[in-house]
Amino acid sequence: MTATMTAPAKAKRAPVPLHGVDTPTLLATINAVGDQPELANFKFRAKNRWVSGTHSQSTMYGFYGAGGEQEHVLPFKADGDHPNVLCGADAGPTPVEWVLHALATCLTAGIANIAAARGIRLSRVESTVEGDIDLLGIFGLSDEVRNGYQAIRVSFEVEGDASPEQLEQIVMQSRARSAVFDIITNGVPVAIDVKTPAIA
Amino acid sequence: MTATMTAPAKAKRAPVPLHGVDTPTLLATINAVGDQPELANFKFRAKNRWVSGTHSQSTMYGFYGAGGEQEHVLPFKADGDHPNVLCGADAGPTPVEWVLHALATCLTAGIANIAAARGIRLSRVESTVEGDIDLLGIFGLSDEVRNGYQAIRVSFEVEGDASPEQLEQIVMQSRARSAVFDIITNGVPVAIDVKTPAIA
Repeated sequence: MTATMTAPAKAKRAPVPLHGVDTPTLLATINAVGDQPELANFKFRAKNRWVSGTHSQSTMYGFYGAGGEQEHVLPFKADGDHPNVLCGADAGPTPVEWVLHALATCLTAGIANIAAARGIRLSRVESTVEGDIDLLGIFGLSDEVRNGYQAIRVSFEVEGDASPEQLEQIVMQSRARSAVFDIITNGVPVAIDVKTPAIA
Repeated sequence: MTATMTAPAKAKRAPVPLHGVDTPTLLATINAVGDQPELANFKFRAKNRWVSGTHSQSTMYGFYGAGGEQEHVLPFKADGDHPNVLCGADAGPTPVEWVLHALATCLTAGIANIAAARGIRLSRVESTVEGDIDLLGIFGLSDEVRNGYQAIRVSFEVEGDASPEQLEQIVMQSRARSAVFDIITNGVPVAIDVKTPAIA
């Protein structure tokens, strides 16, 4: 037995709500899922409807999780389109910009949760996400150029009640637990099914 | 020399605008890029600002492409948040739902462009995109569960002035040239940089 082993346990900091994160409830939720892992199975959905040209609109409302069907507070709607320079009507961000938005919101939510769990109050989190794409791929003008982004860069500015090292560690922990970072960097299998109902 | 070689060339159908796609301009744009491939280098961006808790908001406005800086018709704004059941304020779709929206809008825009280029008029395109995710990953409760989606399914319903086979082929060609399908299925390297400005 060593001195370390007999030393009194480090006092456990009681979690408190911080910068909009209900830390006690968040930690209790994670503990509850640990006891009942089937609660962690989620299915998220977007329902999309073509409008005209390259413009379409999605609705994100129902999803499955925590053991049953859930609904957002309201049906969130969002548009997607190609910009004028690519012959679209520019009725919304491009599909590839939505990917960048997904990544930014995922990493930022994680940063806020992780900081709160560590008792660190944040005052500002801003980021710019930029992706490089060579349209020779999607235009079918080159078989050597991929269709999607070749690289994505995320630049964070984070301010809070902690050292620069602690703030950086929060961002890196968010990256390590980010769903969208994993999706984008590691890929996901996608199955596509087509129905072509007869026209009346 | 064979009969086939001396047969008259198949009459080339002149492209016409269809269902909101300015097909002549689209094809002319692709030809122009073929002559000047540097026009195909694009950089898309999302600028994100943390609001509170897991809620953040992105602005998608400026991007680089076609040889210079471009702007959307207006600064598009979009929120992201975690739902109540995951201790968020549900101020917007979840980051992982935004990924599904990106995929739906990309495939749908491609379907409309490709159908127009083939002279096929579409009357309806709807899709549901669903992704399976096990939150044991992002909660840090299992090292064997990935953080992101395990699988994504896209179900299209497509109606238009063509045979079921032709309509299916349009969807499959859109998949073959979709930027977001490529990003999600094949992955993209993501670099993250953190600045921690001193607090005044």
